[in-house]
Amino acid sequence: MVPKGYLFSTVDAAIKKAGRKDLALIFSQREATVSGMFTTNTVKSAPVKLDMEKIRSRRAQAIVVNSGNANACTGEKGMQDAREIVRLVAGGLMVNSSLVYICSTGVIGVPLPMNRIRPEISKLTRGIGKSTLEDVAKAIMTTDTFPKIATRKMKIGKTTGIVTGICKGAGMICPLMATMLCFIMTDIAVEQKTLDRTLRGAINSSFNSITVDGDRSTNDTVLIMANGMLANKHITEQSTSYHLFKKALHDITRELSRMIVKDGEGASKLVEIQVRGAKSEADARKAAYAVANSNLFKTSIYGNDINWGRIMAALGYSGITLKEERIDISFGKIPIVKKGTGTGRESKAREILKQQEFIIVIDLNIGKASAKVLTCDLTEDYVKINASYKT
Amino acid sequence: MVPKGYLFSTVDAAIKKAGRKDLALIFSQREATVSGMFTTNTVKSAPVKLDMEKIRSRRAQAIVVNSGNANACTGEKGMQDAREIVRLVAGGLMVNSSLVYICSTGVIGVPLPMNRIRPEISKLTRGIGKSTLEDVAKAIMTTDTFPKIATRKMKIGKTTGIVTGICKGAGMICPLMATMLCFIMTDIAVEQKTLDRTLRGAINSSFNSITVDGDRSTNDTVLIMANGMLANKHITEQSTSYHLFKKALHDITRELSRMIVKDGEGASKLVEIQVRGAKSEADARKAAYAVANSNLFKTSIYGNDINWGRIMAALGYSGITLKEERIDISFGKIPIVKKGTGTGRESKAREILKQQEFIIVIDLNIGKASAKVLTCDLTEDYVKINASYKT
Repeated sequence: MVPKGYLFSTVDAAIKKAGRKDLALIFSQREATVSGMFTTNTVKSAPVKLDMEKIRSRRAQAIVVNSGNANACTGEKGMQDAREIVRLVAGGLMVNSSLVYICSTGVIGVPLPMNRIRPEISKLTRGIGKSTLEDVAKAIMTTDTFPKIATRKMKIGKTTGIVTGICKGAGMICPLMATMLCFIMTDIAVEQKTLDRTLRGAINSSFNSITVDGDRSTNDTVLIMANGMLANKHITEQSTSYHLFKKALHDITRELSRMIVKDGEGASKLVEIQVRGAKSEADARKAAYAVANSNLFKTSIYGNDINWGRIMAALGYSGITLKEERIDISFGKIPIVKKGTGTGRESKAREILKQQEFIIVIDLNIGKASAKVLTCDLTEDYVKINASYKT
Repeated sequence: MVPKGYLFSTVDAAIKKAGRKDLALIFSQREATVSGMFTTNTVKSAPVKLDMEKIRSRRAQAIVVNSGNANACTGEKGMQDAREIVRLVAGGLMVNSSLVYICSTGVIGVPLPMNRIRPEISKLTRGIGKSTLEDVAKAIMTTDTFPKIATRKMKIGKTTGIVTGICKGAGMICPLMATMLCFIMTDIAVEQKTLDRTLRGAINSSFNSITVDGDRSTNDTVLIMANGMLANKHITEQSTSYHLFKKALHDITRELSRMIVKDGEGASKLVEIQVRGAKSEADARKAAYAVANSNLFKTSIYGNDINWGRIMAALGYSGITLKEERIDISFGKIPIVKKGTGTGRESKAREILKQQEFIIVIDLNIGKASAKVLTCDLTEDYVKINASYKT
């Protein structure tokens, strides 16, 4: 389901290799209000740097995205290339280049093959409307194994608004965003500050609560465009329909972030780590991430091995306040650790470990704060994929 | 080479499974001065807790060690078991139990099989002198593929003193010590504070500068015994031979810690990450560890893939002060990144990557501090080993 007023185009620019669409364009017929969040990595790609400037205007009409090359660590040349693509796309679409955003994902440190990209851009802009949203979701994939789309409808008065998001990401996924691009579109008119705040909240409990491998990328970007084609009265935090919009955005980002972990490089299982009873939310998150990022924990999940000692060890080095003798851990509903020692119910819990998705609950029993983090197992395939990504 | 006055014994107590020596004893004929360092993990094994009390006396005469079971997260039962083993060993050796230290390594959260250990202890103490140091080094191995021994001789006046260390460790290896046990023996008399300080210095630039997988264990222990059998005048920091002793200890711990990384679970390559030009030593260490622990970096090393973007990304999320456009990176002597962008010399550097040991130098060019960290690659074998460690 696509919100009103958004059109798409994709072409094959042979950026990494020929034979698949790797350059995509999202175009809104009307100038939209835009909000964005970008990687917290100090080393930022050229497109991220450019978009962080652009977004001050809070206005957008198009996003051009390439896969196969991150345009990161490419110096001044990288900035020039990104600006040139934006200029060419803006020219083709006949919109102001300040309204055209750019995103890249792929290998770091290699200049964009401008000689192959440049000639494809007029085809890209001329082709607007000839591709589907799914074509775009596919064109932005790198090591992803499936396109990621989530959508929600909501009633506003007598009309029905749509919020739809796509994203890509499978490796370099970690706290504070990931090698992850996410584009959300809606035809609902939303007041700019409301859009900002709601996006931040949604990202925090979705993309900022997942991990695949603990590595944070240089290119992470989330952009949401609200073009107001529905002609509703701008939604603000005071609007009666605000809670519906907020829920839609939270649902979509959570659904998409779940897909990312599920598609984690080489991953075979999805695990939600819930930490409860922590002294503070920061402690709960730290503890959950220490477990979620532990290679030893992740390999034992892969091996159907209830090696709960690795969870205890990760909690112990996470740097949080804890009392070993108060810790309870359960796999699904099976208590595995009570007051810091094993319950001997491993064989029961092994059944849970064999499932593709399950929850591990860690209760520190020393406070009231909690946090959740989604992670996946670490498999031989992760190593295979990443040992040969570039070459 | 074994220093004077140390005797060894090993038995098969079938702790994890039968068929290999898994219980070992190091005995000094004379009471020795002892120094120790223990894991910084908040979750500590029973033996670590016990030894941390014992070491206040600064005296030791024996160390009993088992592999196959960490005796961690085993509650009050674990403490009782550790105390019982110490008591039985002390009884058999006819020394005060305060002089007997205990160390365990292996799976976490499983009580020691005391019914199998108990009857073996008299055999262990009776057998003293019947095993070699190498037998002990083998008995303490878990996933290690080779025993780790390092030794140095030094002249003190007309006599020759010996310092010898053994250690074990292959997984759960990270900053601030690892699942690592290390026992160092010397026949040289060393004043207690000097022993303490020299050990701390040596560990800092050896065991505290390596990583295999970023996981820190509950059992890490380094103990050094100086029994003074050489009958030299106690070495202090003012002694003329102090620098020789210091060098011997630094050399041994560095050699042993190098062996640990070389034997890293599944590892095929040893990489030294040197960070220079940082604002502070803390920054340099943080940066070196961020790279050394990055799964993406480690898999690219395995795949002979000069994916230097992953180094840049890791530096970027390490949380240190840096200027992207000042960063230089070289593989061996081949400059790969100059001022934040690629030099295009990947094919030359690939030859270096194919070596079993090499150095990567990262110059941040914004300060004068530096640090070195040893790491290894991440391979399918790491996953295989750890997916099935317990079961």
